[in-house]
Amino acid sequence: MTESTMTERPRIGFVGLGIMGSPMAVNLQRAGFDVTGFNRTPSKTAALVDAGGRAGDSVAETVASADIVALMLPDSPDVREVVLGGGGVLEHAREGALVIDFSTIRPDVAAELAAACAARGVAFLDAPVSGGESGAIEATLSIMVGGAAEHVERARPVLQAVGKTVAHVGPAGAGQTTKAANQLMVAGIIELVAEAMVLLRARGVDVARALPVLQGGLAGSTVLERKGESMLAHRFEPGFRLALHDKDLRIVVAAAQEVGAVIPLGGLVAQLVTAMVARGDGALDHSALLKQVEALSGLASLE
Amino acid sequence: MTESTMTERPRIGFVGLGIMGSPMAVNLQRAGFDVTGFNRTPSKTAALVDAGGRAGDSVAETVASADIVALMLPDSPDVREVVLGGGGVLEHAREGALVIDFSTIRPDVAAELAAACAARGVAFLDAPVSGGESGAIEATLSIMVGGAAEHVERARPVLQAVGKTVAHVGPAGAGQTTKAANQLMVAGIIELVAEAMVLLRARGVDVARALPVLQGGLAGSTVLERKGESMLAHRFEPGFRLALHDKDLRIVVAAAQEVGAVIPLGGLVAQLVTAMVARGDGALDHSALLKQVEALSGLASLE
Repeated sequence: MTESTMTERPRIGFVGLGIMGSPMAVNLQRAGFDVTGFNRTPSKTAALVDAGGRAGDSVAETVASADIVALMLPDSPDVREVVLGGGGVLEHAREGALVIDFSTIRPDVAAELAAACAARGVAFLDAPVSGGESGAIEATLSIMVGGAAEHVERARPVLQAVGKTVAHVGPAGAGQTTKAANQLMVAGIIELVAEAMVLLRARGVDVARALPVLQGGLAGSTVLERKGESMLAHRFEPGFRLALHDKDLRIVVAAAQEVGAVIPLGGLVAQLVTAMVARGDGALDHSALLKQVEALSGLASLE
Repeated sequence: MTESTMTERPRIGFVGLGIMGSPMAVNLQRAGFDVTGFNRTPSKTAALVDAGGRAGDSVAETVASADIVALMLPDSPDVREVVLGGGGVLEHAREGALVIDFSTIRPDVAAELAAACAARGVAFLDAPVSGGESGAIEATLSIMVGGAAEHVERARPVLQAVGKTVAHVGPAGAGQTTKAANQLMVAGIIELVAEAMVLLRARGVDVARALPVLQGGLAGSTVLERKGESMLAHRFEPGFRLALHDKDLRIVVAAAQEVGAVIPLGGLVAQLVTAMVARGDGALDHSALLKQVEALSGLASLE
């Protein structure tokens, strides 16, 4: 980053304008950054261009003049290819550029990319988010950041333009580990709520009356608060798709196995989510784990 | 219950003055009921007597003149014996008496006792509680009630004298099923928080910084809010003992199996709690599940 760009509008190259990336890029443009966006499907740049940003022709062109490169891509191989591959970030980014990877990927890949970037004079932060599409649109995401403290300080204006909570949780990869822990707990709690609902229904309890008293005690959870009613009504439009949660739980299991962390409930719920996707329910919201518990219990007729 | 006792102070016979029952009986006495208490260990009646109540000599004498019989006993066999056994409630309670069983027992046993009482002209409610010793002392328990609506209305002044939230969730046994669902979710969420903490620590994340961002999103839970800090500090004094949670999870598993409800995470966490008790940790708080996840992961040195 040069002095001249610091005093003018910092330039951001944003790669990956999907459901999350597009509104994040729009919010950065509106917050005063000069944003160029790239997506393999070019039509996805429309919202950013409408907001006054520019559409890049390639990853190379998008990152070449950027002070900050933002990534929001589906999975670890995508991020590795965009950063390390031919025509990618490391070939074309300026020395001194800062890469902020908002994608949810494996912590070990994040650490590997941070090291590769450092060797070329490029800063790298892993900064996965939670809060979903609505959080991306409203700029209220929670951001879990791993990397060097000075890079986090430099990134802060960008992070605060897309998120409400920014937590620097440790060195490179620590943001991804925290996101993995988040996804482990979310899937597990959804499954527990589903199992509790099936137990209640199967034994003739008025579930709608039981849920408030359960939510009021130690069993309470944000899952039950936000999703209890839609689960009771069997409304499973996403939200957060099971196919994505399946991908995230593969990251969780790999991240645990690599360091010898034993996660019995995490491992089991990963299998249960994979089973949903294998049976063709990957496009449903993750709260549809309830459907599977009902089917296992012979209660499919409740749907 | 006769007209004369309705217009004077209703008489309550309270059987089981343990950690929960003693403060509940005291609160009933203070709320204006005329309470006689019985416990197999006679010294446990001291607090009730100090509050102006009376100590009964036997179950028979304690329940014989009572309008309402309250029970707070350890497990299903204890309640069955006190209600159905020789010298018990059904032999000695008045016709028209109301039995309120605050114990946590099997839903099928609650339904069986309700039927046996009905055949003798005695009303029965299952009314297990959550909120722990502090909730019992402060009269802020949550009470999950199963039984006939007219019995619940009759019991309401008693229930409101010991609890803050009273939920009538269905017919006989429904209160116990709701408590079972509560215990399933509490154990499962504690285990998930423990697994998340071990994953974070094992990968070098600053756990204290990660927990607030996790609590702020969909992964948030009352367990993490109330027990996150003490778990991080490895403070495992009860609280709610693992040995009791083990007993409650046996009820959960039996209640699920009886009706064909399949609870994969519930079944697994029941095994994990049994393992803690089998290894001699039954006297620790249920949040000590963290110790086991650490030990499984070779992280015992973190203690």
